[in-house]
Amino acid sequence: MPESVLREVQDEMLCLPGAGASLLEISHRDKLFVEILHDAENTLRSLLGVSDDYGVLFMQGGATLQFSAIAANLLRGTGKRAEYLLTGSWGKKAISEAKKEGEAVAIYDAKETNYDRLPGASDYTVSDDAAYLYYCSNETIQGVQFQNEPECPASVPLVSDASSDFLCRPLPVDKYGLLYACAQKNAGPAGVTVVVMRKDLIEKADPSIPGYLYYKNHLDNDSEWNTPPTFAIYVLGKVARWLRDDIGGLAEMEKINREKSSSLYKIIDESGGFYRGHANVECRSLMNVTFNLPSDELTAKFISEAGANRLAALKGHRSVGGIRASIYNAMPREGVDALGQFMADFLSRNG
Amino acid sequence: MPESVLREVQDEMLCLPGAGASLLEISHRDKLFVEILHDAENTLRSLLGVSDDYGVLFMQGGATLQFSAIAANLLRGTGKRAEYLLTGSWGKKAISEAKKEGEAVAIYDAKETNYDRLPGASDYTVSDDAAYLYYCSNETIQGVQFQNEPECPASVPLVSDASSDFLCRPLPVDKYGLLYACAQKNAGPAGVTVVVMRKDLIEKADPSIPGYLYYKNHLDNDSEWNTPPTFAIYVLGKVARWLRDDIGGLAEMEKINREKSSSLYKIIDESGGFYRGHANVECRSLMNVTFNLPSDELTAKFISEAGANRLAALKGHRSVGGIRASIYNAMPREGVDALGQFMADFLSRNG
Repeated sequence: MPESVLREVQDEMLCLPGAGASLLEISHRDKLFVEILHDAENTLRSLLGVSDDYGVLFMQGGATLQFSAIAANLLRGTGKRAEYLLTGSWGKKAISEAKKEGEAVAIYDAKETNYDRLPGASDYTVSDDAAYLYYCSNETIQGVQFQNEPECPASVPLVSDASSDFLCRPLPVDKYGLLYACAQKNAGPAGVTVVVMRKDLIEKADPSIPGYLYYKNHLDNDSEWNTPPTFAIYVLGKVARWLRDDIGGLAEMEKINREKSSSLYKIIDESGGFYRGHANVECRSLMNVTFNLPSDELTAKFISEAGANRLAALKGHRSVGGIRASIYNAMPREGVDALGQFMADFLSRNG
Repeated sequence: MPESVLREVQDEMLCLPGAGASLLEISHRDKLFVEILHDAENTLRSLLGVSDDYGVLFMQGGATLQFSAIAANLLRGTGKRAEYLLTGSWGKKAISEAKKEGEAVAIYDAKETNYDRLPGASDYTVSDDAAYLYYCSNETIQGVQFQNEPECPASVPLVSDASSDFLCRPLPVDKYGLLYACAQKNAGPAGVTVVVMRKDLIEKADPSIPGYLYYKNHLDNDSEWNTPPTFAIYVLGKVARWLRDDIGGLAEMEKINREKSSSLYKIIDESGGFYRGHANVECRSLMNVTFNLPSDELTAKFISEAGANRLAALKGHRSVGGIRASIYNAMPREGVDALGQFMADFLSRNG
């Protein structure tokens, strides 16, 4: 979280300017909050270049609820099948929820190589009449990130879980039918999920699905069909403004993220095999740098010594092992540099 | 929101004690957040006297998501019917979602008298094999509040939407199969819903319902099946501690709420018919005081003059008209006294 955003939130905690009360106290129908919500939406729209053909919603329930909502709105009752590219842990969770709503098939699965790669256009075929093509743009556990949108017929809506790389770089929204991101990586605090979707796409959904999952309820009521997560939206709006006004937009953010991640990948590549990246080079993530060390003992030593240097939360997920350095937008260059310096030192002492 | 809670949140915004980072930055798996979550749960358990037979969950999606979740877990696939007492606007919304999941029937509906009353035991009959009996303990728009739990056979789980009077008074949890409350009235900020339910009851639910709606996922993972709304839970924990340690518990809170609401009802009753309470006397709410004035002109004048006296948000819902004064736990006696004084003055000038 950018420090300037935290300071603003702190300053306004007891009294939101103009409200005479805390943001935590005013109603979601209060004119001031409605302005905050619209401002957050409009800042996202300007950052991403979202056209009026698309709705921008703020929902609760995280990616997990979206796994169900997407299939309930776009698959249930269509007689079609949904097609999934499985490139890591989050895609697998998504398809298991979709199977409850209809036919959902993995047309690509990188399981055999423990999700270290992404498909090329020749590695899968999307049916022309698929309900949608689903993928996860960045898999946090494996550290693989699509560099571009996967190939998808124009007749098939492309759906993306962008939770962990949303706002890390420009995003061609008009290539998507629907994309969503829970906020807690790059966009704000836990408790709000941004959903961007083509308005015409969700008009056909079956209104008999659970009301909270039915996108049209949220779209028709500007995310105020029921009480939205007011505080999370308020902070998200401030983060979006920081990205636009302080950073200078998403192209600038991408430049910074490339510099940060490159500096770590360079150390991995020049370590003579001491550090071994998990993800194949061409699909390395800007957000999650995953690598292994020569032994479990060295991995444990790395984590322990890093912790003593105030470099925390580096342990990789058990399915991949090793180290995972998550370097989301708000991680300053100094933090990445400190980790890089530690990696170089650790190599010189143990390599 | 109690001012002491807001000040604590403000003080800790940049650095949560022990974390070296903001609560908005740490992972929901961080030991410090897990402690905060468990502490919030345990404070609620001690305030309400919740036994180990019950789970206490923190979920997202508000009451609206619970409308669906309750019916999906307790009605879908059972072949039974769910029975509803409709005493106001929120109950009506709940039954419409339940009907998507199975047979849901209103066995009492106060529509004819515009929801100004609650049923006595002779006004409805619950089937011995109903999936559950559902009611809303306090209807915010109408200002009617059950003084005790409705009569319900021991074979039928009692389910309550306690969103708007949760923590306003002691609650005999062991009479319930399930009760829930979105936090934003008495318990914390918008964005988290507390669900208290008998563990054995939800074991029988159909796992093919959308995963986020399946209570067992949340119960088996201590509300960390997916990322919970961390900030809202953190604030809720502080509000619960304020109730326990500063107020002295729920019996004490009820005493304060009775004094606050009685002072307004007294002015209504002694106004010679100038102020006319919407709810029948025996089911008046401690939280929402609803009344009408002799004419629309006087109502408009009342709201306008009150606003000039910094008494805001008094306009009643269009279905009831008139005035609604919401005096939740955190509304200080001084605020209620100021409203009472204004009501007396307004009467003397216009009565």
